[in-house]
Parts: sequence; structure tokens; C-alpha cells
Amino acid sequence: MSSEIVELNVGGVFYTTTSRTLTTQPDSKLTILFNNKENALRDSKGRIFIDRDGVLFRYIIDFLRDGTLSLPETFREKERLKREAEYYQLPALIESLTVNLQHQQPGVITVGYRGSFQFGKDGLADVKFRKLSRILVCGRVSLCREVFGETLNESRDPDHGIVERYTSRFFLKHSFLEQAFDMLTEQGFKLVGSCGSGTAGTAAEPKPGVDTEENKWNHYNEFVFVRE
Amino acid sequence: MSSEIVELNVGGVFYTTTSRTLTTQPDSKLTILFNNKENALRDSKGRIFIDRDGVLFRYIIDFLRDGTLSLPETFREKERLKREAEYYQLPALIESLTVNLQHQQPGVITVGYRGSFQFGKDGLADVKFRKLSRILVCGRVSLCREVFGETLNESRDPDHGIVERYTSRFFLKHSFLEQAFDMLTEQGFKLVGSCGSGTAGTAAEPKPGVDTEENKWNHYNEFVFVRE
Amino acid sequence: MSSEIVELNVGGVFYTTTSRTLTTQPDSKLTILFNNKENALRDSKGRIFIDRDGVLFRYIIDFLRDGTLSLPETFREKERLKREAEYYQLPALIESLTVNLQHQQPGVITVGYRGSFQFGKDGLADVKFRKLSRILVCGRVSLCREVFGETLNESRDPDHGIVERYTSRFFLKHSFLEQAFDMLTEQGFKLVGSCGSGTAGTAAEPKPGVDTEENKWNHYNEFVFVRE
Amino acid sequence: MSSEIVELNVGGVFYTTTSRTLTTQPDSKLTILFNNKENALRDSKGRIFIDRDGVLFRYIIDFLRDGTLSLPETFREKERLKREAEYYQLPALIESLTVNLQHQQPGVITVGYRGSFQFGKDGLADVKFRKLSRILVCGRVSLCREVFGETLNESRDPDHGIVERYTSRFFLKHSFLEQAFDMLTEQGFKLVGSCGSGTAGTAAEPKPGVDTEENKWNHYNEFVFVRE
Amino acid sequence: MSSEIVELNVGGVFYTTTSRTLTTQPDSKLTILFNNKENALRDSKGRIFIDRDGVLFRYIIDFLRDGTLSLPETFREKERLKREAEYYQLPALIESLTVNLQHQQPGVITVGYRGSFQFGKDGLADVKFRKLSRILVCGRVSLCREVFGETLNESRDPDHGIVERYTSRFFLKHSFLEQAFDMLTEQGFKLVGSCGSGTAGTAAEPKPGVDTEENKWNHYNEFVFVRE
Repeated sequence: MSSEIVELNVGGVFYTTTSRTLTTQPDSKLTILFNNKENALRDSKGRIFIDRDGVLFRYIIDFLRDGTLSLPETFREKERLKREAEYYQLPALIESLTVNLQHQQPGVITVGYRGSFQFGKDGLADVKFRKLSRILVCGRVSLCREVFGETLNESRDPDHGIVERYTSRFFLKHSFLEQAFDMLTEQGFKLVGSCGSGTAGTAAEPKPGVDTEENKWNHYNEFVFVRE
Repeated sequence: MSSEIVELNVGGVFYTTTSRTLTTQPDSKLTILFNNKENALRDSKGRIFIDRDGVLFRYIIDFLRDGTLSLPETFREKERLKREAEYYQLPALIESLTVNLQHQQPGVITVGYRGSFQFGKDGLADVKFRKLSRILVCGRVSLCREVFGETLNESRDPDHGIVERYTSRFFLKHSFLEQAFDMLTEQGFKLVGSCGSGTAGTAAEPKPGVDTEENKWNHYNEFVFVRE
Repeated sequence: MSSEIVELNVGGVFYTTTSRTLTTQPDSKLTILFNNKENALRDSKGRIFIDRDGVLFRYIIDFLRDGTLSLPETFREKERLKREAEYYQLPALIESLTVNLQHQQPGVITVGYRGSFQFGKDGLADVKFRKLSRILVCGRVSLCREVFGETLNESRDPDHGIVERYTSRFFLKHSFLEQAFDMLTEQGFKLVGSCGSGTAGTAAEPKPGVDTEENKWNHYNEFVFVRE
Repeated sequence: MSSEIVELNVGGVFYTTTSRTLTTQPDSKLTILFNNKENALRDSKGRIFIDRDGVLFRYIIDFLRDGTLSLPETFREKERLKREAEYYQLPALIESLTVNLQHQQPGVITVGYRGSFQFGKDGLADVKFRKLSRILVCGRVSLCREVFGETLNESRDPDHGIVERYTSRFFLKHSFLEQAFDMLTEQGFKLVGSCGSGTAGTAAEPKPGVDTEENKWNHYNEFVFVRE
Repeated sequence: MSSEIVELNVGGVFYTTTSRTLTTQPDSKLTILFNNKENALRDSKGRIFIDRDGVLFRYIIDFLRDGTLSLPETFREKERLKREAEYYQLPALIESLTVNLQHQQPGVITVGYRGSFQFGKDGLADVKFRKLSRILVCGRVSLCREVFGETLNESRDPDHGIVERYTSRFFLKHSFLEQAFDMLTEQGFKLVGSCGSGTAGTAAEPKPGVDTEENKWNHYNEFVFVRE
């Protein structure tokens, strides 16, 4: 049997694992530690001692067992875990956490639309569905691109060379509001605010070709999404 | 007595259980492990050793005891637990978790209504109740169907063959807004945004048969629901 | 001294208690277990062994000590704890948890009001307070009754025989919006959405007796409350 | 050295402390227990045994060490901790928790304002700031007083003798909306809903002295604050 | 080897570390304790005993290992940890926590804008983007300055000498709403409320040079941000 049991004392928390798991990553401090285990510090019960946080080691050993990172859905110690990964010299774990943390780059994107309803000829349709032409997108250019990718229309944005700036001149190539919302939530954004407003009436005669009923129901709805 | 006590060391966390519980699922790794317990790795106290996460094992053993999955209401390690279930080869648990995770498929549904109030003849009714005709539903077709089922009216949606698309042409067969909200919350959706807007007045004479008071109070309220 | 110390191993978690506490509920499995303690399974340290979840046992023993249920304010394992109470045959605890869980029956109630401001004669009052006549309540009939009780006016609801249905024809007997909100929050509802809209102007002359200033400020505010 | 080490077994959780800490409060059950320690129940390792919840004892011993109560910011077991303080007969801790729990008395307060913008003569000012005259406060009288204290103007409330009632006739002595919000959040209230609405236009000529531009931008914003 | 293993019993929770880690901060109580370890209180297993909270010591020892403070993202015991740092006499940790806590100084800032859409000549542009001139900022002066720094325009605020006051006369030097939101979220503010309102129509002829379409879509959106 090629693996032997190893008992660890990590800052006072005890773990049991095997030599095979511990030496999975050849250049890590844990491999070096195990290969020099006769020189390792040991606690009063003979366990190999590591002077690091004992709680976060749960995820370090988990990564060594499976080779992939799988964190609880609401894990809130990523920065701290990255510090541990750096200490143990686990580049693949550092990489995973860095991607994971970058992915969490915070920012705000606002999505808005001017909408009304489809009334059909003489307003006779029995159901009037939502009607909107353009979905407007405002925010930091790089963030908008990350979220909307190919569905983003930048053709009307005057300064499209510069990325580190804000714009309010992006819009989407489609008109499905919920698709835009789905893309935002898939990227970790949450809807945190929403505003609606109607329009002002006028005493003027409606222009020819304008549907007065549709005109009356015009509104602007604006949705603020945040990624923390 | 047909069952004996078994002491386990799962990655450094200790559990005590019985042989009967451990071997409930005939083809699982735990049954195999117990049936070959004379070859099992053992820690320094003689406990059977398993080189897996010790915390999540709480739910593995719980499942073996009762045969059903019962997780804390806000459990946030489902993906991680599924990985453990795969390791232990527990198909019924994997199945439960897969259903559970699918059920959490994220998405956005928007519900909107154009409403006003019932004024009665000459506005004499002492209480004016909310009046709305159609509850509009927008979002991914498959998601809307999952939530609203038989209460969804798709008759006005032109492309009803294709499922993987977005629509803004669904409406409900009833007009109870709170029933729609209840169905959404029962399916794990949360209301995250809401917008209201009134309508614009006009200088035109009201058409015959239009209740001017009701007309004045027209508004469009839109509610955004998200399942994370 | 009538009580002796009992050491327990509940699925690997250790508890210490007294025989008096353990046998408080005469017909429970724990009383039976203690009265037959010479036949009980014991772990390697001689502790009485129970093959159940070790963490939830904290609340089982707490209930035995005081005879009442007191859970953390955000306790999220009620269903799981109820399963444990059923296993241990503790009817009073099952009852408490059932009431507790029923109380958490999810649902949505919408509260809305049409309001304006009190301008006084010729708008001369220095402060214009909120003015609203009726607070409208919409939702499932049984839920609305549970929350608002005697303050609910059902006189205008046409079908008041049937309970398992939705209505938008309830209103409150008083006009204190915050009292309605307090009753909802006391019953575990949370405000999750709110919409406001003004009214449309008209070219028509105001009717005699209508305060034009008050008319101008008319608005409809709608509040969505959810209990999860 | 006047203090000796004391090992405790509180319901199966082990604590180590000193006799000095344990006897800080002369009349508490812990002082009595220590002074009669030769008669105390002891576990199999000789630790003094206490048949109470082991987890909450962390805060009991913390209180004895420093004499003050300092809980985690999101502590959710106050009712349970109070029950423990009553068991141990620690009046100062009961008092702290009672104040703490009262402070958390739930309730709803609504703040609203009618506002517009300052346009200056002929609308020539380059920036138009928010303009509002009165901040209206609605809710339970005692709660409004607790939050706003001296900044609350009750002069227009007709029934100011009675405290256990609701009012919509309070307003603030100042016109700084954010100061009102700060006072609410300092007292543990959270903003959970907000509604905005504009006003209706009229065909009538504006009255002399009315700024038509300012008039056009009139709106009513209403904010609902809840303390859970 | 210059470091030796030290076993600690902190209020009943056990930690293992090295003498080097423990004596990192020369004037701390832990250094003093270690240098007088022959006089230290010891528990029944010979561990050095410290009569303080055992759970929070995890972060104390962590700080000694790395010399920097790294807390979980949602750590909720900062006040309690500061009390521990004061007990152990660790000025650098006290300093970190004080900065950290000050940074969390609560408050409310409101951001609002009057906006419409760019219609271009005769409304012929195919996409109408959001158009806003000034972003208004209201709140406590010191807080607004902390968040917006150089991007804040105070030139129109009459009393700019006094800091401890509220103002509604600040605006931003730029017109990128999302940049303002990003700055607020970077400083720990969360959007908790948002209100929208349109404008009232008039019977008057539009003034020369006013774009009637743009005029119609005028709205005021107000966003409330809170830092807890």
C-alpha cells in the first residue's frame, strides 16, 4: 500500500490525511514538509505541526484531494484563503482564486428602456403586450463588454478606442429585457434599484401617424445592477 | 444484536455510527469499505480512516440513516456535497442533489400589468378597488412554463415551437396578481425590482364610453423576479 | 442527589447531561434508552451511543432542560429538527415546531392606497399632510385574514364563503398605512417591492367641489409584502 | 496567586477559566457553584459540570471577564442568551440584553416629501438643486418620538396626549432628508421601499406668482423604513 | 532550531503555535507571557492558559503570523476583536481595526438626476440615449467629500466652512451616473432605495427652442445609498 496516514496539527486544528494526498503538488511546501518529515516540528501527540490557520486548511486539503477548487456558494474568506495558498505555494489554487476574485470585480451597470404597449389597429387587440425598441446600457466600458459580449452594440459610442471610461451610449442588439437581466445575473450582478416614470402630456395635436393610445402609455424604466 | 458501533475519522473529523447505517446502500464505497474493514486505513486510535472532507460527511451519514435528503434551509454547499456523493457512489443522493440544483436554475421573469380602479357609475362607489385585465409575463419560455404551468396563456405568442428563446407575449389566464407572485415565490423566485408609471394626459376629448376617472388613474406596474 | 451525570455520543458529537434532564419526557426514546441503559450501545469510551445527527441534538437537549422551545432568531434547520423530534418521540416539541413552521407559511400580500395631500381652504395650510381614504388589500383570503384579523373589511368582497381563493376586494377599517405595515411585519412579512404612479391630467374643466391642487397630487402607491 | 484554574463541562462543551472570573458576580449561580465546588457534579475527567447549553456559555464567560456585554454584530440568539442569563442569575447581563432587545422593538416609519427644484429667476441658474419644504413622518407615535426626538414637530397633530396610536401628522423641524435617514439608520431602521410619483398637468392657466417650471417638476417621494 | 512549539488553552479552545510567532510583537502581553512562561497558569494538560475568548484568538494568532490583518469578507465581530487586541496590547492590530471600523462609519447619501433623452434634430436619430446634465448629491458634508473627493463640485454650496452639517447643494463635476455609483459602492455604500417621477404637462405653448419630445420625457430619478 503506497499511502500512509498522516496526522496534522494546523494551528491547533487536527486533520488526518494520507501521504499521497499531501504530496500531490510536487513543489508545494506540503510536499517539501512531508519529504523532510523527520525534521518537522511535532506537537505533544507526535502530529506534524504547521503554524497556519487551522480552519482554512479544510479547503487546502480539499483542493489537494480532488485537484479542483469547490467552495461553498457563499464563501466569504477568499482573500484569506488566497493568502494561505500563497504560503503553501500552490500555484494552481492561487490561479483559481485569482480568477474567482477577479470575476467578482465590483461595478455598476444600468439598463433602461423606453417602452409602451402594442395596441394594434384602433386598439382592438384583446391583449396589449409590452413594446420596446432599444435597451440602453450605461456603465464602465470594460464591464459592459464583459457582461454583454457580442450582444452589445457599440456603433453609436463616439470614443470606442478607450476602455477605462464610462459611457451611456451602448445599447443591445436585441430587445429582450429578460435576456439582458439573465446575462447580468449570470455574471454575478444583482438588481438593486429600479425607477419608473411616465411622460408629460401636451396640449398640442398629435402628429400624423402617432398612435395616441401608445403615446399615452410611454414610460421609461431604469434598472441598476451591482456586482459587489 | 445485528449492529455494531463503528468509529470513523473523516479527514480529521470524528463520527460514530453503526454498521447497519454504514452499509444501507449496497453498492456504495462505504459498504465496500466496511466489508473490507480489516484492510481499511486506520488512524492512531484505530478509527477507520476516510480521506475526504469531514464537515460535509454530516449530511452523507444523515442520508444513510433516514434514506432521504433533508438539508438546512439555507444550505450553501450543494455543489460540494454532490461531489462527495459522487465520491461515495450514492446514486440516490446524487439524484436528489441534481434535482435540487436544477430546481435552483437561475433566471429572471418579469410580470407587469396595466391597471386602474373601479369607480362604478359616476364614481359613486365608496371603495374603488384595483382593476386589471391582463397580467403580462416576459422571460425565457422554458422558465415561464415551469413556473406558471397551466395558468399560462401562450395563444398570442407567434413562435411557440421553440423553447430556448425569450418572449414578451405570454399572459396569464387569470387576473390575480398575488397568485402569480405566490407561484413565483413557491418556485424560489424573489421580487428584486418594481417600477410604476402613470400615463400622459391629452388635450383631446375623451372617446365615448371611456370612464374619464378610470382613465386618469391608468398606470403600468412592472415587477422583476429573480431566481439565483 | 437524585440525578447522575450521563455522557452521550450522538453521531460523534459528545454531550454531557443528567439523568433527570434525559428522562423529562416519560414516553420519549431517550427515557426508554436511559431506563435500559445497560443494553445501550456504547462507544469506546463508554458513552451511551445514539446514531443520529450530533449538531441538532443541541436543541433537543435544550428543550428537555427547559421544557420550551427557544431557537436562534435565524434558525434554518426547522424541518431537519422536526425530523429529529419525530425520531426521539417528543410530541410537545413536534407540536412547537409544526406551529412554528406553519407560521412561516409563505405567501404574498399587496397593500395599496390612492392618496394625495390635505391642502385646506385655498391651500393656505402651512403643512400639507398625507391624505388617503382606503387601504386596499389583495392576496389569498386566508392569509389576509390571518394577518389583519378584525381590522379587515370584507363587506365588499362578493364571494366571502370560499377561503382558498384570491381576492382584490378587501380593504382595511382604518386608514393608518404604517399600522398595516406593522401588522404585516409582526407576522413575518417583508416589504420587497413598491411602485408609485401619478395620474394623467385632462383638458376638462374640474368638476365643482373638486380641489384642483389636491387633484393634481393624486397618486397610487402599491407595496408588495412576502413571507418566505 | 489568588486565582486558580477551573475546568468546566457545560453541556458537553469544555471551557477553562479562573476562579476569579467565575466568582465576579457575588450572587450568581456560578459563584454559588464554585463556593460549593466539593458538592458539584463532575464529569468523568473531573471537570465541574453544568447542565446548560454549551455554545451560549461563550458569551456568559465573556461577560464575567470584562463586565460588559459585547456581542457579534449580527448575533441572532439574544432571546436564548437572555434565558441563560436568567438561569445563571446575572442581573446586569439580563438588563443589558433587555435594553438590547427593546432597542430592537420592531416597527415601520414612513418618511415622505413633496419636492421640486430651484430654478431661480427665469430658470437661468446653471444647476437646479432639490427643493423641499416639509419632511412628513408617519407611524406609531412612540416610535417616531424615539427616533426623531427634538427634531420632530408635533404641533399639528390633534391628539398628542395619546402615545399608543398611529399618526400621519408629524413633520420635521428641518428639511434635510438625509439627516432624517441617518437618524433612522442609527436607530436600526432599514429602508425597504420607496415610491415616487409626479403630478398631473391641468389645462388651467397657472396662478400668478407660480413658477411654471418648478410646478412641472413637482413630485412626491415616499420612503418606508422598517426595524425588525 | 530557534522556535519551539507552544500549546495554548485560550478559554477552553486549544491552539498550537511557535514561540517565534507568539513573541513577534515585543511589548504585547503574549510576549510577556511567554518570557515568564514558568509562572504562567497551566491547564491540566500543561498548556499555557489564557482567560480570554477562545474563538476570536484565531484572528489574534493569524495577525501575529503574518503581521497584517485579513478578516473574512463578512466578519461581524470587529468590536469584539478590538477589545481582544486591547487586552493583548497589540497597537498595530488596534490601529488596523480602528481604521477598519471608522471606514464603516454609517451614513446616507442621496444621488439624483433630472434626465431625458437625446432625440436629435426632428427626433430622427435611431437610438435615443440618456441625457442628463447635473448629478446632484445630498447628505452629510464630510461623508460626501470622503466618497466623491475631487469629483465633487461644492462651488454652489453657501456654507462651505462648516463640515458637520447636511447639504443638498453639491453636484458632480462629471455626468456619468454609474461612475458615481461605482464610487459609492467602492466605499461600502449600498443602493437601498430608488424613486422615479415624470413631469406634469401644461396647456401652454412650448417656449421657442425647447425640444417638445425631449421635454415630454423629462424625469427625476433619485437613489438612496446607505453604509451601515
